[in-house]
Amino acid sequence: MAKPAAESGEERLIARYFRPLALHPAALGLIDDAAVLTPPDGCDLVLTVDAIVGGVHFFADDPPGAIARKALRVNLSDLAAKGAKPSGFLLALALPDGVAASWLKAFAKGLGADAEAYGCPLLGGDTVKTPGPIMVSITALGSLPQGSMVKRTGAKPGDRVVVTGSIGDAALGLKLRRAGKAAGRWKLDAKMRDYLADRYLLPQPRNAMAEPLRKYASAAMDVSDGLAGDLDKLCRASGVSAEIDVAHIPLSQAARTALMAEPALIETIVTGGDDYEIVCAIPASNVAAFRMASAVAGVAVTEIGRISEREGGVRFVGADGRLLSLKNRSYSHF
Amino acid sequence: MAKPAAESGEERLIARYFRPLALHPAALGLIDDAAVLTPPDGCDLVLTVDAIVGGVHFFADDPPGAIARKALRVNLSDLAAKGAKPSGFLLALALPDGVAASWLKAFAKGLGADAEAYGCPLLGGDTVKTPGPIMVSITALGSLPQGSMVKRTGAKPGDRVVVTGSIGDAALGLKLRRAGKAAGRWKLDAKMRDYLADRYLLPQPRNAMAEPLRKYASAAMDVSDGLAGDLDKLCRASGVSAEIDVAHIPLSQAARTALMAEPALIETIVTGGDDYEIVCAIPASNVAAFRMASAVAGVAVTEIGRISEREGGVRFVGADGRLLSLKNRSYSHF
Repeated sequence: MAKPAAESGEERLIARYFRPLALHPAALGLIDDAAVLTPPDGCDLVLTVDAIVGGVHFFADDPPGAIARKALRVNLSDLAAKGAKPSGFLLALALPDGVAASWLKAFAKGLGADAEAYGCPLLGGDTVKTPGPIMVSITALGSLPQGSMVKRTGAKPGDRVVVTGSIGDAALGLKLRRAGKAAGRWKLDAKMRDYLADRYLLPQPRNAMAEPLRKYASAAMDVSDGLAGDLDKLCRASGVSAEIDVAHIPLSQAARTALMAEPALIETIVTGGDDYEIVCAIPASNVAAFRMASAVAGVAVTEIGRISEREGGVRFVGADGRLLSLKNRSYSHF
Repeated sequence: MAKPAAESGEERLIARYFRPLALHPAALGLIDDAAVLTPPDGCDLVLTVDAIVGGVHFFADDPPGAIARKALRVNLSDLAAKGAKPSGFLLALALPDGVAASWLKAFAKGLGADAEAYGCPLLGGDTVKTPGPIMVSITALGSLPQGSMVKRTGAKPGDRVVVTGSIGDAALGLKLRRAGKAAGRWKLDAKMRDYLADRYLLPQPRNAMAEPLRKYASAAMDVSDGLAGDLDKLCRASGVSAEIDVAHIPLSQAARTALMAEPALIETIVTGGDDYEIVCAIPASNVAAFRMASAVAGVAVTEIGRISEREGGVRFVGADGRLLSLKNRSYSHF
């Protein structure tokens, strides 16, 4: 008589590394074809997908936990910018031959830690083999009261342009990662170097801002491909333009130090990607309340310019009153 | 004065190939960070993700439209097996350098045709570059009345095991694709060869079965990794076993012809993947009604065995009463 059929390698992999993360009842313990979610009454669901690829969005030797967390956080950042509360996520993971058990263990541990920290449980997934590099594709779901999603399209002339946190750190961190010697030229101390490297490695999505954005913003998006290019997108979607005071763009101490040493870095700061901050348009009459709500949420926000109707795209105006000329305004894969 | 900023290559790619598919209002024309979906009242959402990779799940020289359709259909098949009506999907597409515009055009055309045919619109996506092969990861959403999802866990002793369509065609089609000479040995005519090749290239998900399954099945899943292994999974999830009459497994004329010529192919038929049929457990008292509803839905269904409680996994019993011995019961990536 036949023995009970053994689980396949794929089932064992899922059971060992990912089932412990599937604590939400909608995940059905990852033993079914699909997850099943009962949407909250009166809510819209916000859906976003972002994929990261080894050698493109992260380095193959990045810590596996950081890769997992980055993959989740870039999606959480989209939910934050739209004003949505995370509901959960689905994971498609492509693995080359020979990925070590220790890699998978650390990947799952990082993923689980963030799923818990951000209240965004694993709902389902697919694990496949690839002859290429590791690829992590995550689809995240969020919810918000019906009709309240903060879109890219609502910016109006006169609105103030506001950003969270600081801009350019991740792009500088990536430059350092590629050519560590720059740290000397930029006069960075070890702490500043580590800070910039970490800002590239591990985005800090602004999920605490979801409610303030829903209440006070007329438009918002997350800054993933560079402030200049992303603000261009927001302006195009809203049919407006914007004027930005370069001197007001919030910089970390590390970025400020590097910029002092090498003024041409302003282009990297303004057009480099991976900030995962939020840029939004706030009607002038809402700015004070938005500032207050952001302070309560524990997130620094800075007014950097204003939306205008005249044509001409987004203009970055330097302290000397001259327009900044930018070669590549945005990170683009194609 | 600055010119209006040009769209990036990535934006142009999305606008040219994928925006025409984003007809559903939830997609917001693909110009926002996220899609926003108002779930129907009283419904659960069913969520599934499946990724396909060039050189693993399809051949690099498969027609791009067929690759797109396969990527969507393997997800539609999961929704069908769960009894859900498609709501829409999100696409993560990783492209190597040098993918031609004609490839993308044909890919988008195939995707759009199936999105329309199955009522499953594109809601959002992400397009990234990869140094590896093309990878298409799709997350599909479906809806059904609250609490009505057909799970893997509900099979009960005495239930009949039923499958849709025919089993093994795609696995034979893949064998032919890898070694076309087998067609002669298997005594297949050109029509049979084409039929099997097409069953591998383009799954036929059984979405017409969603309602009959919801009404009459105690458990169901789609057959993607081979009948033996997938039925093993269903039985493990339900805490039961099953006995299958090998002679009752429905075969196409092409598969029957090949099997007559080479009886050892029974292993390929029973354990090969990519059927995208549905295997389900139907309480004996529901079988007649389920047959009727399936006929109305235009899908052939065949009773192939029954669920039992005694231990021993799934047993495949040949016409001679002897148990089939299977080396690898399931396709597994790991």
